[in-house]
Amino acid sequence: MNKQNLQSVKVFSPATVANVACGFDVIGLALDAPGDEMELRISHTPGVKITAIEGAKLPLEAAQNVAGVALMAMLQEYGQPDLGIEVSIKKNIQPGSGIGSSAASAAGAVVGANKLLNDHFSPEALVRFAMEGERLASGTPHADNVAPAIIGGFTLVRSYQPLDIVRLHTPDDLWVTVIHPQIEVKTSDAREILKQKVLLKDAIRQWGNVGALVAGLYQEDYNLISRSLEDVIVEPIRSILIPAFHDLKIRCKEAGALGGGISGSGPSVFMLSKGESNARSVADMMEKIYAPLGVDYKIYVSRISTSGVRVI
Amino acid sequence: MNKQNLQSVKVFSPATVANVACGFDVIGLALDAPGDEMELRISHTPGVKITAIEGAKLPLEAAQNVAGVALMAMLQEYGQPDLGIEVSIKKNIQPGSGIGSSAASAAGAVVGANKLLNDHFSPEALVRFAMEGERLASGTPHADNVAPAIIGGFTLVRSYQPLDIVRLHTPDDLWVTVIHPQIEVKTSDAREILKQKVLLKDAIRQWGNVGALVAGLYQEDYNLISRSLEDVIVEPIRSILIPAFHDLKIRCKEAGALGGGISGSGPSVFMLSKGESNARSVADMMEKIYAPLGVDYKIYVSRISTSGVRVI
Repeated sequence: MNKQNLQSVKVFSPATVANVACGFDVIGLALDAPGDEMELRISHTPGVKITAIEGAKLPLEAAQNVAGVALMAMLQEYGQPDLGIEVSIKKNIQPGSGIGSSAASAAGAVVGANKLLNDHFSPEALVRFAMEGERLASGTPHADNVAPAIIGGFTLVRSYQPLDIVRLHTPDDLWVTVIHPQIEVKTSDAREILKQKVLLKDAIRQWGNVGALVAGLYQEDYNLISRSLEDVIVEPIRSILIPAFHDLKIRCKEAGALGGGISGSGPSVFMLSKGESNARSVADMMEKIYAPLGVDYKIYVSRISTSGVRVI
Repeated sequence: MNKQNLQSVKVFSPATVANVACGFDVIGLALDAPGDEMELRISHTPGVKITAIEGAKLPLEAAQNVAGVALMAMLQEYGQPDLGIEVSIKKNIQPGSGIGSSAASAAGAVVGANKLLNDHFSPEALVRFAMEGERLASGTPHADNVAPAIIGGFTLVRSYQPLDIVRLHTPDDLWVTVIHPQIEVKTSDAREILKQKVLLKDAIRQWGNVGALVAGLYQEDYNLISRSLEDVIVEPIRSILIPAFHDLKIRCKEAGALGGGISGSGPSVFMLSKGESNARSVADMMEKIYAPLGVDYKIYVSRISTSGVRVI
């Protein structure tokens, strides 16, 4: 294929888990599935146009759409006022699920558009553009979903000023099980209930766990990963918003999970496991716990995606 | 040498840097030098006896000496009431320096005695015994000096209940420069000025840096290590106790250091560098800054010890 002639591209943009246990606001990971499918095309009408959205009720107006604002930020920096990009979106990740629905749209849009621009921008620049989508979605331009969606694997946001994203080593045999209870938890509400100050001793415990989790990933030491998946700061507060959270945590570990926590700001809950078989036993346990509750739910079992958004 | 016949042993026990920047209370590292020299002997008089201390004024009574209480904890768990151990200590690490003087005595004592007991105890058990020395020295049985002294390299204390020590990867070409201003900063005072609560946003920044520092060590990414050596919680408070601290930090980085901070609870300040040549330039800069101050000081340049306490 001649690079100059690439006029359209289809991408798959994965769901992501942010706030990986102790790594609140800094550590995220990408799933292989579910994910949104998006098609992007060069257009002769300047600017960004969302032509269609399937699977969710979301605004078509570019300035009100996370994919739209991410692309607008990108085009502004690209600096060719005549350039137009059209995008159509098939949402497979439900908005408000806590597994990076808005991030997937923003990340897919900028990675796809970058293909049409012959990979003009670096992955870190793409993260910056996609963060504008997050700003629209939640009021805060956070990177802990868009970074793993764009870069793949486990990522760590070391700093925002300047933006500093670290791709962490991802052990081969690490799987994720996610349950999405179909209840609404708004990111803004979930953020409001957090305290502005925390005990120094709790913070120390948390960063001990963060350091150990990162070491566990590099050493592929699943026991160490398991011991480190502990959040003493945010989970005790936010978990009250999620039905049967403590039951899930305890019994999923009994079923073979290494550990887990709230995905993003919820309501989804994720569990990490060594190997697919454990991840599926964890899914069965989630079902067993949720089936009697009278709350609708979806369960996903996925490997961790090492690529992030990919062309399909 | 016949193992059963080992009646005495000489060890070298290294200085250590605890509170490695962002890793307050959890990350420590061992130096190759300076270090204490200790000789331990099996004795027919039950219990622990300190026969001599050279180089510092410290109590000879075992129950008042950090090496003594560490050995007493060890012998109690060993459970042979007739067993006696004698120890003589040559202190090369000045008490109160902030580079793990008490930890070196406690660590050297238990590693040496363990040789006399045919390596009966695991390194983690030895850390536990040596922590009793730290309890005597500072009121808190902390592990972030004794762990690197015993295990070597960079260590991370993930948890105390249960004790969980992680040995981190140590890049080959990482060097340490330490300046010890000859002023007194008591660990207990340094601890008292800390606030019990910290801002959540500062804590998040700190654990982002901890995760990135650990990733930098595993990836041997010196730039990432450099960017992560930032402490937004403790250093802003404690650094007021150390003459010319900010000057040291800024100008040592200009001289080639990756970064650094307060060693332990001070007054020593450490800087990490890539390679010996940079570490020596940093030492020159430290001297240049401190020479006009009218404060006595010692400067050390050392590789990171990957072995910890060693038999000599």
